[in-house]
Amino acid sequence: MTYCCGILVREGLVMVADTRTNAGLDNISTFRKLHVFERPGERALIVASAGNLSVTQGVLHYLADGLENPETGVNETIYDCANLMKAAHFIGRAVRRARIEAFDPDVQSAGVNFDVSLLLGGQIGAASPRLFMIYTAGNCIECTTDTNYLQIGEHKYGKPILDRAVNYDTSINEALKIALISMDSTIRSNLSVGPPIDIVLLRRDALRLDVSTRIEANDPYFRDLRERWSKALREAHMAIPAPPYGDRAP
Amino acid sequence: MTYCCGILVREGLVMVADTRTNAGLDNISTFRKLHVFERPGERALIVASAGNLSVTQGVLHYLADGLENPETGVNETIYDCANLMKAAHFIGRAVRRARIEAFDPDVQSAGVNFDVSLLLGGQIGAASPRLFMIYTAGNCIECTTDTNYLQIGEHKYGKPILDRAVNYDTSINEALKIALISMDSTIRSNLSVGPPIDIVLLRRDALRLDVSTRIEANDPYFRDLRERWSKALREAHMAIPAPPYGDRAP
Repeated sequence: MTYCCGILVREGLVMVADTRTNAGLDNISTFRKLHVFERPGERALIVASAGNLSVTQGVLHYLADGLENPETGVNETIYDCANLMKAAHFIGRAVRRARIEAFDPDVQSAGVNFDVSLLLGGQIGAASPRLFMIYTAGNCIECTTDTNYLQIGEHKYGKPILDRAVNYDTSINEALKIALISMDSTIRSNLSVGPPIDIVLLRRDALRLDVSTRIEANDPYFRDLRERWSKALREAHMAIPAPPYGDRAP
Repeated sequence: MTYCCGILVREGLVMVADTRTNAGLDNISTFRKLHVFERPGERALIVASAGNLSVTQGVLHYLADGLENPETGVNETIYDCANLMKAAHFIGRAVRRARIEAFDPDVQSAGVNFDVSLLLGGQIGAASPRLFMIYTAGNCIECTTDTNYLQIGEHKYGKPILDRAVNYDTSINEALKIALISMDSTIRSNLSVGPPIDIVLLRRDALRLDVSTRIEANDPYFRDLRERWSKALREAHMAIPAPPYGDRAP
């Protein structure tokens, strides 16, 4: 499984991804799912991937090495896309191509899933930072100021904190904290999501990543965040008054 | 959809269930999913149901009106089961029967799901309170002191708080609060889970329910709990220090 989350705020963009892949429960590995395509001063793009690993690796190959533009016949990479929407469509084409190459109907009938989903976040030139989700069909949706986060993979455990705590005016550092709390909730409840965690932080108009690092399981800040969060939750429910329902008191 | 949760603690048992059913997103109704079978002083049993409504209603019919015991030929109801394990097996037989009666392979091929799952909690006589989950195959598992809660329906959104906050030594009132927080998280993230919420609280050896009530959407305690919880979560993440990751500070 996988959990990746992107949060778009006024100050910029945060993306986090776990690194655990599994083929069954008895075959667990570590693979990077957060990929950076950066030309400082011109563009900073981050792609997060979930789903069939052979398909997502195929997609990444096309993003870096290029795919023929069907209209011009020219080979293009993600560095050639003029804006984020075009980059999202380009990834959609790469998904279709990589999925066709990996797909086998007999193998799918045997239970192998060839689906993928990806997030694309970043900024190109003077345009605002944007965040997209690309589906297995190659189509995409864009994050808005109303719903300013997108998730792929095991999204449910980490969603309640996002629904409660983030909006477009959340500070970028707060967004990173909340993304890490969301990741922690997911890791606690789904064994197939696990550390290390890759994180990136892109400030609006910086056109280069401010943070791009890997958080290991024993990272002191992440450990402290997990402990503080657990303690705060315990104190929070203990501070709520006792339920008054006793219509059938003995 | 549905969300029901049972928590077994040293002091007794708490069960909560929402009341929303839906056939598609455009056909939403209110149905009770928490059912009490009680003979004060002798037994107090609570059954929560999720899944295909025609099957769960068939199951409830058999629990109350009886099913022939295949060994003795005698008609038995849930009131005739000598202990909780026998009651769980009895419900399993009722599930198999009701599912066969409702099942149609052509309709299933068209996408209708005939699966159900149920929780059975309670106490019979001097034996300890117990909590079971009964699957659509009619088999069951029992909650233990290691993992002292069980969920059916939309279980993911409400699981992180249970994983963090409850254990067998949690007080019964605290367990009810946590169950309501878990329900609140689920309601916030899944439209097809909704109020009113039915709750029961059974104290060890009471052999009658201490609380059996319905919490409406505008219930003052539940509203206060939701507000306090949201506020505490906001304060909790704001109290966590800012992330120290700035390896690529501009």
